Amino acid sequence: MKKTKKIKEVNVFGRVDLKAEQLPKEYFNILPLLPEKLAPPLDPRTKKPLKPKALEVLFPKELIKQEVSEKRSIRIPEELQEQLLQIGRPRPICRAKRLEKYLRLPSNVKIYFKREDLSPVGSHKSNTSLAQAFYAKREGIEKLTTETGAGQWGSAVAMATAFNDMQAEIYMVALSYEQKPYRRTLMELFGAQCYSSPSLRTKSGRKILKQQRHCTGSLGIAISEAVERAVEQENTKYCLGSVLNFVLLHQTVIGLEAKKQLMQLGEEPNEIIGCVGGGSNFAGLAYPFIGDRLKGKSDCRFIAVEPETIPTMTKGKFTYDFGDTAELTPLLKMYSLGHEFKPAPIYAGGLRYHGLAPTLSVLVKHGIVEPITKNEKEVFEAAKLFVRTEGITPAPESSHAIRAAIDSALKAKRAGEEKTILFNLSGHGLLDLQAFKQFI
Amino acid sequence: MKKTKKIKEVNVFGRVDLKAEQLPKEYFNILPLLPEKLAPPLDPRTKKPLKPKALEVLFPKELIKQEVSEKRSIRIPEELQEQLLQIGRPRPICRAKRLEKYLRLPSNVKIYFKREDLSPVGSHKSNTSLAQAFYAKREGIEKLTTETGAGQWGSAVAMATAFNDMQAEIYMVALSYEQKPYRRTLMELFGAQCYSSPSLRTKSGRKILKQQRHCTGSLGIAISEAVERAVEQENTKYCLGSVLNFVLLHQTVIGLEAKKQLMQLGEEPNEIIGCVGGGSNFAGLAYPFIGDRLKGKSDCRFIAVEPETIPTMTKGKFTYDFGDTAELTPLLKMYSLGHEFKPAPIYAGGLRYHGLAPTLSVLVKHGIVEPITKNEKEVFEAAKLFVRTEGITPAPESSHAIRAAIDSALKAKRAGEEKTILFNLSGHGLLDLQAFKQFI
Repeated sequence: MKKTKKIKEVNVFGRVDLKAEQLPKEYFNILPLLPEKLAPPLDPRTKKPLKPKALEVLFPKELIKQEVSEKRSIRIPEELQEQLLQIGRPRPICRAKRLEKYLRLPSNVKIYFKREDLSPVGSHKSNTSLAQAFYAKREGIEKLTTETGAGQWGSAVAMATAFNDMQAEIYMVALSYEQKPYRRTLMELFGAQCYSSPSLRTKSGRKILKQQRHCTGSLGIAISEAVERAVEQENTKYCLGSVLNFVLLHQTVIGLEAKKQLMQLGEEPNEIIGCVGGGSNFAGLAYPFIGDRLKGKSDCRFIAVEPETIPTMTKGKFTYDFGDTAELTPLLKMYSLGHEFKPAPIYAGGLRYHGLAPTLSVLVKHGIVEPITKNEKEVFEAAKLFVRTEGITPAPESSHAIRAAIDSALKAKRAGEEKTILFNLSGHGLLDLQAFKQFI
Repeated sequence: MKKTKKIKEVNVFGRVDLKAEQLPKEYFNILPLLPEKLAPPLDPRTKKPLKPKALEVLFPKELIKQEVSEKRSIRIPEELQEQLLQIGRPRPICRAKRLEKYLRLPSNVKIYFKREDLSPVGSHKSNTSLAQAFYAKREGIEKLTTETGAGQWGSAVAMATAFNDMQAEIYMVALSYEQKPYRRTLMELFGAQCYSSPSLRTKSGRKILKQQRHCTGSLGIAISEAVERAVEQENTKYCLGSVLNFVLLHQTVIGLEAKKQLMQLGEEPNEIIGCVGGGSNFAGLAYPFIGDRLKGKSDCRFIAVEPETIPTMTKGKFTYDFGDTAELTPLLKMYSLGHEFKPAPIYAGGLRYHGLAPTLSVLVKHGIVEPITKNEKEVFEAAKLFVRTEGITPAPESSHAIRAAIDSALKAKRAGEEKTILFNLSGHGLLDLQAFKQFI
């Protein structure tokens, strides 16, 4: 009786907070539950399976251990838990009450969302940047290098290195470096060094600039520069914002929190939705729930939304491919549009990637995760509706999930079905207002 | 014994959340506690005391009632409470643990801050914009007009009118309209009409453009345009983001929450700090605590920080003055630099005002609130330190409070004094990164 009352109260307020002490203490690892074993990464030169040891030139040992771990859960060290508290975790789940009202949904069709937009650097990316910086620092690493497109990942790394008293060297795609100076400013405020890529600081950068003096850069080139600098400097490692198993692992704090929150509400989700570039925010929310489904404990559906113009999951091939255009990274078995694919210049920069995380690829292949596409126009329409009803400006990336959630709720309404939807609001769009301006 | 344990736990986490049901149900009214009665506003033409009734052409009746109310508290209607929950109230108080560590503060010198930056439109302004829109709508008003400088207030009004199914007509200072297109985009996303001021839509605008074709505008001109449009349209009222008693009243939810939070922590603040333009964010946090001091229950100090170049409180005169440059508004008895004062072009646009809220003026005059000034360079240095240690990008306005908090903590450290400081982080600076860029 008492419990019912509590549930009702929470529902009325439309928001579920967790206490600081309810922060997850362990990451959820999907690896031991996957329906097929992951194919090993291949050496980019020999094309033969790569030993984990070979990755030590790029990554801290602990992360490589996590990359191949078959443990069901991995403990989060207390000092790292403290950093997650510092950036505002646990984060609330909200019910989109005003959006539901606008859509005239019946009371048994509900939309919830997880507020990763509340991160001080604006997206879920800080969950893994803090972890990567923390583990690196613990192994004596003093500097991290990385690439960034529009700057979401770069600013998350800049914060993480500031928090862990390390340096950061960030290669930002030249076009964004010029067109989006504010994320660069944010990185510099944190004390990071941010360079336009291609740069004169690396062999790969100089080679490209020699051929093409006014090259505007690409993620592929920026990766090559960051990798080169990680290898040639002492006490320096490279860090990555998506795709790899350990990156997705760090993001599972999102879904672990969400499970507790829905349990407090007495809700069982029927559909979990996230946008997908490399797959990290989707996996972060969905994997702990997918775990239940793989154990036969749930029949929840999992909807992964990609842009119509970058149809990695819906039209890509499940094959070995490089992570970068320059063919420097190990080959991963994944859905891919081919590493020479040139993504359309859509505003959702975080979704402009040819490949897909190997674990997520396996789940798509086995039909556990269902991919769909949305086009840019309908995505921006959904974003605008979300601003007007919920007051929050969503990132263009996250707006793909909003579109899918709205469409799914309306479908349930038409069919007279009960449905509880949960989507990941992976980031805010306050530094993307330029894109909204052009859309208006 | 049990209580002590709880307090210790909360302190360890460095953050105190309140539950949704702990949202304040009443505003705190400082008027009946003031050490002297407020002088009445004067009619701009006759210079004779203005009857509250005369304000009805501009403001909803309920707000005029609140403006002169002598009640100690005023109930917040349930529907309005719901809107405050929607924008994420109650908001956390955080302890600036990483900043404290950087400053090597002893454990008995503590810095707490209230996170008004978590508002979806980026500042405390939404607390009153929602209230003003709500009360107006309840009286059948369909449209609000207002002015905005850099756009913080304008976007708060745009959200509030969207939430209350009303229209908004916003006059934005021409210079900002051109230089800061993103806040304008945000207003338009909410469905507001946003015009560059001076505009051709009003008599006052046309008159100025005739004299000065390329006039870049001012808050004074924009106020005239918004007031003119409120008067000439049916079912339309004007709304204001600071200075007036009812605006400050709506902001007291900040301090009421903070009192509960500090009580949970077992903390007694020694010093409460806020930046001051018109005075609304300072008053919002401080007034409920000042109430205790006026009742003899506390000896907390209250520090109001203004920019060195706009020294309203420290060098202004306590006198009757106009609220706008065009001499259209009623005269208020307040600290003022003169309504023809041209504020220096500092980045903290929200502090560029010649006057000060009448209630705050009385408290400054009686020495209950202590004004200090900080210069732009030291303010940006503090902002940068805050970004690096706490991860949050503060608004240039709020950074004045950060500077004062740091200086005060260091002074206590040197003197070997115990001190608990609470400051208001009134807004985030993610749409002010241009200013940070120039500072770097």
